[in-house]
Amino acid sequence: MSTSSFDSMVLVDPARHSFVASAQGSEFPLQNLPYGVFMPADGPARVGVAIGAQVLDLAAAAERGWIRSVPRSVLACASLNALARLGRAAWSALRTELVALLAQGSALAGHADAAVLLHDASAVRMALPFDIPGYTDFYASEHHAFNCGVLFRGPENALPPNWKHMPIGYNGRASSVVVSGTPLHRPNGQLPGADGVPSWGPTRALDFELEIGAFIGADTALGHSVAVDEAWSMVFGLVLLNDWSARDVQRWEYVPLGPFQGKAFGTSISPWVVPLDALEPFKVALDPQQPAVLPYLQEREHVSYDVALQVDLQTAEGEQACISTSNLRHLYWSFAQQVAHHTGSGCNLRVGDLLGTGTISGPEPTQLGCLLEMTKAGQQPLQVGAQQRRYLEDGDRVTFRGTASSAQFTIGFGSLTGQILPAR
Amino acid sequence: MSTSSFDSMVLVDPARHSFVASAQGSEFPLQNLPYGVFMPADGPARVGVAIGAQVLDLAAAAERGWIRSVPRSVLACASLNALARLGRAAWSALRTELVALLAQGSALAGHADAAVLLHDASAVRMALPFDIPGYTDFYASEHHAFNCGVLFRGPENALPPNWKHMPIGYNGRASSVVVSGTPLHRPNGQLPGADGVPSWGPTRALDFELEIGAFIGADTALGHSVAVDEAWSMVFGLVLLNDWSARDVQRWEYVPLGPFQGKAFGTSISPWVVPLDALEPFKVALDPQQPAVLPYLQEREHVSYDVALQVDLQTAEGEQACISTSNLRHLYWSFAQQVAHHTGSGCNLRVGDLLGTGTISGPEPTQLGCLLEMTKAGQQPLQVGAQQRRYLEDGDRVTFRGTASSAQFTIGFGSLTGQILPAR
Repeated sequence: MSTSSFDSMVLVDPARHSFVASAQGSEFPLQNLPYGVFMPADGPARVGVAIGAQVLDLAAAAERGWIRSVPRSVLACASLNALARLGRAAWSALRTELVALLAQGSALAGHADAAVLLHDASAVRMALPFDIPGYTDFYASEHHAFNCGVLFRGPENALPPNWKHMPIGYNGRASSVVVSGTPLHRPNGQLPGADGVPSWGPTRALDFELEIGAFIGADTALGHSVAVDEAWSMVFGLVLLNDWSARDVQRWEYVPLGPFQGKAFGTSISPWVVPLDALEPFKVALDPQQPAVLPYLQEREHVSYDVALQVDLQTAEGEQACISTSNLRHLYWSFAQQVAHHTGSGCNLRVGDLLGTGTISGPEPTQLGCLLEMTKAGQQPLQVGAQQRRYLEDGDRVTFRGTASSAQFTIGFGSLTGQILPAR
Repeated sequence: MSTSSFDSMVLVDPARHSFVASAQGSEFPLQNLPYGVFMPADGPARVGVAIGAQVLDLAAAAERGWIRSVPRSVLACASLNALARLGRAAWSALRTELVALLAQGSALAGHADAAVLLHDASAVRMALPFDIPGYTDFYASEHHAFNCGVLFRGPENALPPNWKHMPIGYNGRASSVVVSGTPLHRPNGQLPGADGVPSWGPTRALDFELEIGAFIGADTALGHSVAVDEAWSMVFGLVLLNDWSARDVQRWEYVPLGPFQGKAFGTSISPWVVPLDALEPFKVALDPQQPAVLPYLQEREHVSYDVALQVDLQTAEGEQACISTSNLRHLYWSFAQQVAHHTGSGCNLRVGDLLGTGTISGPEPTQLGCLLEMTKAGQQPLQVGAQQRRYLEDGDRVTFRGTASSAQFTIGFGSLTGQILPAR
């Protein structure tokens, strides 16, 4: 192990393996160790860690003395909030213990307790990882902002004048954030009509948005702003995020106060929260920002992570295709800049707050993060096997994946999936 | 008592008096009985009810057997969420008990327990009444929307095309909602500059917004929408709300995703939550809506309440003036329509969610609910005694009041006050 950006960062030797055989070559090797909340067949929800095709029960591990750095009560919670609230030093101590516990040669390997502490991932249900007091969605990918701007406002007004000066964001709806696997009904809403007279009914332009979400791991005080170079240390970890959007509703409602019911019906996230420590080997410098940003947004390191993102669409008719490959590196505004801007007014953040990047699109036509961009607002249908799609149909299932790979290992986010049910 | 809009509504005979002498003629007579969370000098926060210049300790009242309809554990909470979650039948049962307990002739009058259960309001501190999972702000007053539209977008685009078709709303920031008396630092933010290049610094256009907030008293399920005529029964009660706003920050940031840091630095609410039962005698019909609204927004009764609202400004120099008198009747969109629209997409509401009306302005120049309107975006300064104000200065204190009066009694919201401290 070595330290990097944070004094307390816990990096795992790429050559080190877990005694859990399925970890090697999987997206959950010893180098990842993402946290989640799971429900075993026979007990209440508690904190777990993914290792290969297994889930380590941290509450049981603490109860039996295998984990000592964090109290069992924290790990027996049905959310990660209490763990996050312990602070970064505790996160590092726990990660250090977990690496030792799950590595080859651990005393747990071959011990009878291993059968108690390790569950087959396929036999447990995953819950929302955090109680989420606030959900904020940014608009941090330039390609996405430009492409959407062209479709909503025309090419001459595509990027609003403020876009290169601040990470634009808005408050999303926290109550309707759901975990992967939760189906969503097609929402009803006001649809724009001829002569400015709207109608009411199921959206005809249901879309997904390919995003990454950051979970905040520390409370800040009201009136206190976070320095941009300190912001990274407040991030507990990242998840895949699908900001489902009803484009017709959104277009009609969003002037002047922003998106509301066009997005409030549901936001899906993946269950495993990947620590920044696990992503550290995949850090990449972002292009310098032009024009220069204001001092409160100027970073020592303007970075993101090289995480390959993929969108699969399985249609109601059973066709399946990968319809997009993007990357978390296609951000203009970093997570740290998002945090610094969010708290710049003195607005307080709380443990469990979720910050979405906004749709992440790359420069190529194959790297677009939503159907709005892919189909040019429904004008150019997408071929999915024998089927065509302008927007999502009832029964369609959207799955996101995210993986970061080196020559020696891959870490991943697992999958984020959601199916569209008919409108009620 | 009689019943009205809700089967279980508890109205109090206007002629009935409390044995608490200060209640008569005050804004907290027997007919009001608003709920709040207070901290006595010698104990933890718990639920209380305002009666005249006194606060009844409901946790202690339950402990000593004076209240039997609601468990003591619910009333010993540091928020009203548990009480609200019991449901409207329980709210009615408790209100019925409280009326009997505090009326003239109650066994509590003259009993030694009265001295234990009743605290001088001046001797206790008030806390935020609810844990607030979500804060949504609407834009429900036509005069305000029109006046602001003229200033932000010009008279020809003042009311956006969607305005008369839906109660426009946006997700506000719940973490920074604070209780009356909490001072706020002038926020920093990006200020628009010449040639589209912003600067960073303390806002030069700090404003208040005169609003009423509704606390939601029931959870709804994701995917379920609330019928507009059922929406009133979900509202636990109302408070005064000040949606502090940095107008320069807001103007620069709000296109295309709506207000964010220009409002996220703080929202103040009054501590006493006035039940709809108390406001029932002051119900007023609103003008019919033209054009007709979509069926999901059509109400049996399109109503608000005749609550006189007042804004006092005390300047840093010690001048004081009433600068606005508006009224809760100046709404175009009712609270029920706000709830129906909010849940129309299937978005779920939760107990403790706070829905703001948006600034409430009347048709007259003396009835404007924010400085933006009063000073025409700072162009026409307001006279406050010997001082002038375009926007708020450091040290200024803004106080809202709200009262509803009949020939026989007045009920009120108490006061909502906040002072501006210098930027950090």
